[in-house]
Amino acid sequence: MTRREFVRSVGVASAVPGAFMQNDQSPNAANEVQLSQIHGPSEQDEKAPGPFLPTKRRIGYAIVGLGRLSLDQILPAFAVSQYCTPVALVSGDRTKALKIADQYGIDAAGVYGYDSFERLAENPRVDVVYVVLPNGLHAEYVTRAAKIKKHVLCEKPMAVSSQEARTMIRSCKAAGVKLMIAYRQQYEPNNKALRQSIANGALGKVHGFVSSNSQQQGDPTQWRLNLKLAGGGCLPDVGLYCLNAARFLSGEEPSEVSATIWQPRDDPRFTQVEASCSFTLKFPSGLIASCSTSYDVHKSQFLRIEGDQAWAELSPAFAYHGNKLRYSKLQGDMETETAPQIGEKNQFALEMDHFAECILEKKEPHTPGEEGLRDHVIMEAIYQAAHSRKSVVLEA
Amino acid sequence: MTRREFVRSVGVASAVPGAFMQNDQSPNAANEVQLSQIHGPSEQDEKAPGPFLPTKRRIGYAIVGLGRLSLDQILPAFAVSQYCTPVALVSGDRTKALKIADQYGIDAAGVYGYDSFERLAENPRVDVVYVVLPNGLHAEYVTRAAKIKKHVLCEKPMAVSSQEARTMIRSCKAAGVKLMIAYRQQYEPNNKALRQSIANGALGKVHGFVSSNSQQQGDPTQWRLNLKLAGGGCLPDVGLYCLNAARFLSGEEPSEVSATIWQPRDDPRFTQVEASCSFTLKFPSGLIASCSTSYDVHKSQFLRIEGDQAWAELSPAFAYHGNKLRYSKLQGDMETETAPQIGEKNQFALEMDHFAECILEKKEPHTPGEEGLRDHVIMEAIYQAAHSRKSVVLEA
Amino acid sequence: MTRREFVRSVGVASAVPGAFMQNDQSPNAANEVQLSQIHGPSEQDEKAPGPFLPTKRRIGYAIVGLGRLSLDQILPAFAVSQYCTPVALVSGDRTKALKIADQYGIDAAGVYGYDSFERLAENPRVDVVYVVLPNGLHAEYVTRAAKIKKHVLCEKPMAVSSQEARTMIRSCKAAGVKLMIAYRQQYEPNNKALRQSIANGALGKVHGFVSSNSQQQGDPTQWRLNLKLAGGGCLPDVGLYCLNAARFLSGEEPSEVSATIWQPRDDPRFTQVEASCSFTLKFPSGLIASCSTSYDVHKSQFLRIEGDQAWAELSPAFAYHGNKLRYSKLQGDMETETAPQIGEKNQFALEMDHFAECILEKKEPHTPGEEGLRDHVIMEAIYQAAHSRKSVVLEA
Amino acid sequence: MTRREFVRSVGVASAVPGAFMQNDQSPNAANEVQLSQIHGPSEQDEKAPGPFLPTKRRIGYAIVGLGRLSLDQILPAFAVSQYCTPVALVSGDRTKALKIADQYGIDAAGVYGYDSFERLAENPRVDVVYVVLPNGLHAEYVTRAAKIKKHVLCEKPMAVSSQEARTMIRSCKAAGVKLMIAYRQQYEPNNKALRQSIANGALGKVHGFVSSNSQQQGDPTQWRLNLKLAGGGCLPDVGLYCLNAARFLSGEEPSEVSATIWQPRDDPRFTQVEASCSFTLKFPSGLIASCSTSYDVHKSQFLRIEGDQAWAELSPAFAYHGNKLRYSKLQGDMETETAPQIGEKNQFALEMDHFAECILEKKEPHTPGEEGLRDHVIMEAIYQAAHSRKSVVLEA
Repeated sequence: MTRREFVRSVGVASAVPGAFMQNDQSPNAANEVQLSQIHGPSEQDEKAPGPFLPTKRRIGYAIVGLGRLSLDQILPAFAVSQYCTPVALVSGDRTKALKIADQYGIDAAGVYGYDSFERLAENPRVDVVYVVLPNGLHAEYVTRAAKIKKHVLCEKPMAVSSQEARTMIRSCKAAGVKLMIAYRQQYEPNNKALRQSIANGALGKVHGFVSSNSQQQGDPTQWRLNLKLAGGGCLPDVGLYCLNAARFLSGEEPSEVSATIWQPRDDPRFTQVEASCSFTLKFPSGLIASCSTSYDVHKSQFLRIEGDQAWAELSPAFAYHGNKLRYSKLQGDMETETAPQIGEKNQFALEMDHFAECILEKKEPHTPGEEGLRDHVIMEAIYQAAHSRKSVVLEA
Repeated sequence: MTRREFVRSVGVASAVPGAFMQNDQSPNAANEVQLSQIHGPSEQDEKAPGPFLPTKRRIGYAIVGLGRLSLDQILPAFAVSQYCTPVALVSGDRTKALKIADQYGIDAAGVYGYDSFERLAENPRVDVVYVVLPNGLHAEYVTRAAKIKKHVLCEKPMAVSSQEARTMIRSCKAAGVKLMIAYRQQYEPNNKALRQSIANGALGKVHGFVSSNSQQQGDPTQWRLNLKLAGGGCLPDVGLYCLNAARFLSGEEPSEVSATIWQPRDDPRFTQVEASCSFTLKFPSGLIASCSTSYDVHKSQFLRIEGDQAWAELSPAFAYHGNKLRYSKLQGDMETETAPQIGEKNQFALEMDHFAECILEKKEPHTPGEEGLRDHVIMEAIYQAAHSRKSVVLEA
Repeated sequence: MTRREFVRSVGVASAVPGAFMQNDQSPNAANEVQLSQIHGPSEQDEKAPGPFLPTKRRIGYAIVGLGRLSLDQILPAFAVSQYCTPVALVSGDRTKALKIADQYGIDAAGVYGYDSFERLAENPRVDVVYVVLPNGLHAEYVTRAAKIKKHVLCEKPMAVSSQEARTMIRSCKAAGVKLMIAYRQQYEPNNKALRQSIANGALGKVHGFVSSNSQQQGDPTQWRLNLKLAGGGCLPDVGLYCLNAARFLSGEEPSEVSATIWQPRDDPRFTQVEASCSFTLKFPSGLIASCSTSYDVHKSQFLRIEGDQAWAELSPAFAYHGNKLRYSKLQGDMETETAPQIGEKNQFALEMDHFAECILEKKEPHTPGEEGLRDHVIMEAIYQAAHSRKSVVLEA
Repeated sequence: MTRREFVRSVGVASAVPGAFMQNDQSPNAANEVQLSQIHGPSEQDEKAPGPFLPTKRRIGYAIVGLGRLSLDQILPAFAVSQYCTPVALVSGDRTKALKIADQYGIDAAGVYGYDSFERLAENPRVDVVYVVLPNGLHAEYVTRAAKIKKHVLCEKPMAVSSQEARTMIRSCKAAGVKLMIAYRQQYEPNNKALRQSIANGALGKVHGFVSSNSQQQGDPTQWRLNLKLAGGGCLPDVGLYCLNAARFLSGEEPSEVSATIWQPRDDPRFTQVEASCSFTLKFPSGLIASCSTSYDVHKSQFLRIEGDQAWAELSPAFAYHGNKLRYSKLQGDMETETAPQIGEKNQFALEMDHFAECILEKKEPHTPGEEGLRDHVIMEAIYQAAHSRKSVVLEA
């Protein structure tokens, strides 16, 4: 089986990075070992997880920022990545960084402080700088990474304003490095299968989208509740998933926005940022998206997208684990629910591998800086609508 | 077991009409036959469906209007009612009405035309007039029923304007008859169990509510797509369920409304009324309700209500059959879903029985005219917000 | 729409009694009123529940025995029946019977004692005698009913031995009356849909069947725990559902049986009958059915049937309410679960209506005495296998 | 937080290897980095996946046999292991083995043939030999591994006879090396949570167990269909999971066995081994386990365990991914289903890590050779019962 056949046989729903690839000449194709199927025709084929690159030939990542996301999700994800390996850490806490480096097999020489960030330039193993800092620092570090000619993967939200986002795009273009925003949901298998099925007409014409992404925040001193560092409250952090999903699942851009915000006066967590935000996006086709986000309700994550022939639901929708997809539709004379059992994959590995492939194969990433910029423009309109209590028209 | 014990043992979640009763002296209590339990303690008690009234002593209903709702749902529901029986039909199609009367054991003398409506006054078996006409005719027939001193059960939406709703309330008050709006969902067991659990604090403080109620309309000539007869499109017909649920589940009244409407220009179904509407209700406590309704998506009906300790979901939420309730919450160190298996009951029977009990026991109905009026005030604000593209403040 | 078209349009899955009918000339067809569909093509058609017979022309049932099943399930079921009405009660407790008669609108003249059973002969409204007595009395009352020339619907298990079952069949044949055994599950919509889909090849070749039907018994003095009255313990009462389902879903008869029984010595409930029984049925095609039943576990009711292309599961499977069907199968390259949303129907009404149609249309019932006899032959083999600890071969 | 506190805080349900540990002095405890929780009290704590050992200090595994299981599951599992690393491969196909070695970062010097197996003795990085060969070769390679003083992890089924199993135990004891059988389900989080909850009385007294584990085999030439290499058909391969689960979930040993087998004459896949097998285990407490397995039905994997207070179901039960646990029980007056959302973990990593900890901490593994031996004794009784058509008594 050639690489192309492999990619084709796996299909979009498997959400392997290969699904975005169009090139047989992957440097690791020669490494592939697949055995013949022994099961009967009613069973799903088993697939060995390769081919993948040996460690020394993998794309090297420098992780900038060692907070929860890096420790709990990103660093462990390298273990199941196919093309990436962590080779450097940037942190303000050298003791912690050295411990982590030891655990993940990163040489102590790959541990940097923020002030020595530019020394990454001299480390030939570093291909990508992955910026996992508070939102308010994204612009600075993306720009610094571009200046030292490293490709940049930047956590979402891209920045704290559309202006910053534009600057970041320009800096990377000027430096000739790639910029990708880490919208992991767009690489998650259930979301991808849903997007594909909508594009194939499985729901008919899509007229409705309803989604919530919320969780309860605790510690009032965390940076997520600091306006300058976070750029907002629940909206840019978790509500962004609803907004981005409405866009990428429908394949359309909203033309008008209305919104409502709640910011209680007496809660120490919400002195600077909103606690809840509901926003409505109207699209040129007539689709209306109703989105809801909060930092003060128990973790709730789902989306339902409604077409004139069927609806689909992801519940949970934006979780690290356990996302589940089902459809409901009239079949014959019976309303019938259908649930493809889509295997769980590590979303951080999938997005890092995608970026690695873009670098290896000189392609543009699926979620470039422009994707992040668009969301910032819309989020600014959401805040404007909420504060003015009027709907805001978006330019095409 | 006394009546009171019976009611208590059944509990709110069983959604028997008795759950609203506070009086032991039900005329049928003497009829009760219950057997001892034979199952072990791990099993749910079995309950005979009585006590209920023998046909001749039941509250007699005149059904006004023989469209789909009457034929498909309301008339069949009498079979499982405990206190009600159909005794008269009012229809413009006498041949059809006589067939139906024959099927349901209604005497041919109980068949009336719209012009002979007032002759219901002379029929002593008629206690209640149930108005199941197009919305635009509700006000007229409720008023005519009040004038002939019959109690009135009126389908939702109550009317086509808050002004009509006020008049209807006044007419019934003046005539000394009871007026109830047929919000069947408030009598449905899963909704009732959810309302009760929220009141008991099962979700903590409620900050989020997300709901959709939508279906695809076909025939462009039906009255539901006629502005004068329907008073609007999807909003007063199906969106009303989301609006009403946000209010009765939270126990709060909204203070501000924003909304978006879609009415395609080229679809013969939507020349007079909206195809889709999303509206956001803000409540004084900080709760925000995001509601979505459409007449051009495949049947989609759910609600999720989010508290700071847990969320609950009804999916489906507003269906005639199959409503399902589940909760999600941290238990110990694991997120845990809990689904009480609440038996299905006929919602039309439950609401008709409730009204029967109100009459027998001289009580006010749980969903009086004022409940319908409140929804009309809010729906007018929703339309105003959508058309002005500004949020609208509601008076307390 | 003719009656035949109506039946065809409804389909098997709707499990209306009409699905068994082949005759357009139903006496009530003229009564049919159906409205045109107003929904769009993506929505399920709405159906008025008729046509059904007016009360006075319905098949009249005499209910013999007023225990839990009659009070909790059978009498209430008449309310949603289309062709049946209760016209007589036979009970040893005249006071209770008169109360019940009053509730259900049965004339006091229709209340009989066991000693005056034969006087039912003189009641022209009684077409069917429904025997709902302890199993050990079925044979006597079926025979007495046959002698007075009434059709007989007999609860399952048919009797307490195959010998009795044979006698009952002979008595009814000799008297020229119909005999049906009340296997309600065979009339339940989910079971019917599953049977049909298996016959249509949805699972491929069926090789596996696994099922449990169990519940916890309490009161040690009840007749179900009395060997003479019950004919056994959990096996004939609840295990029978697994056995019968294995046969009617596969459409095959078992050829060999093995079994294991548990009867604890120190439990007052199980001094006469088994507490648990597991039995394995081997079928000529290679299908093996593994069935499990107990009177001492919390209510547990499911079945899974496994073919070489797919499996299907009913969970719950034999419940009065809430049975749910789903399939699992490879679709494209993804294992996919499919769940038709089959509406709940009252199973007792469906089976009583089926028998009414058989009488009205002079047809044989779907579950005649021979169906009950076959199960008794197999249950005797199960007990023999359990006691001898050897497998028992069944004659074809 | 000390190691002990960490283990305690994680709890059994998380199924980390630490749950079996009783020693604070783990060599990697010093490496632990955990951040403070930032979420509110309604949310689950986030946990970084460590502490884990740096690669160079991990337990080194030699994988013997490079078939589907090694390629698809075991080798990829090392990526998410905490204490293990692959350091050697033994294969008859050197080209394939070198490719795999390259992918997994194993030095080419770590690639061995079967004839050079004993040279593993000289490789100091090899602590454990993991035997992943056809069942009929397990005894030989376990014995050879013991002779060169390597600890052995052996795939299930342990061997092809109880006699072999006894020899293997003796060889390892004599050599002073540890022997563990790879019963991955016993390390899987859902199964572990269920076992724990049963031990805690969540189901009351357990009287019923029903399970199926089946899949459709294709290629008739594969070793799994060769009696000498496999030791049987579906029973030792997949039916073993049901058998083992009945034992470890109940914590009891069966005392009597009956069984039925199907081996079609005309199917090239089943000339040597059974296609289907159902077996019933009776336990001293009265528990009866009904188990079903087949090589000719579409993949079907579940278990239900029934107590006198509640039942629990795992569906799927024995899958690599997606196992789901739910309970059903009366709560208040409502039957209620409860589903803890237990995160998926790589079962191969969990079992390899457990064995690594046993070696590091000088403990006996949770599933030693004796666990495999017990299953072989019972499987021999199952075959004997099936062939003799009589139940077989097991010695205590």
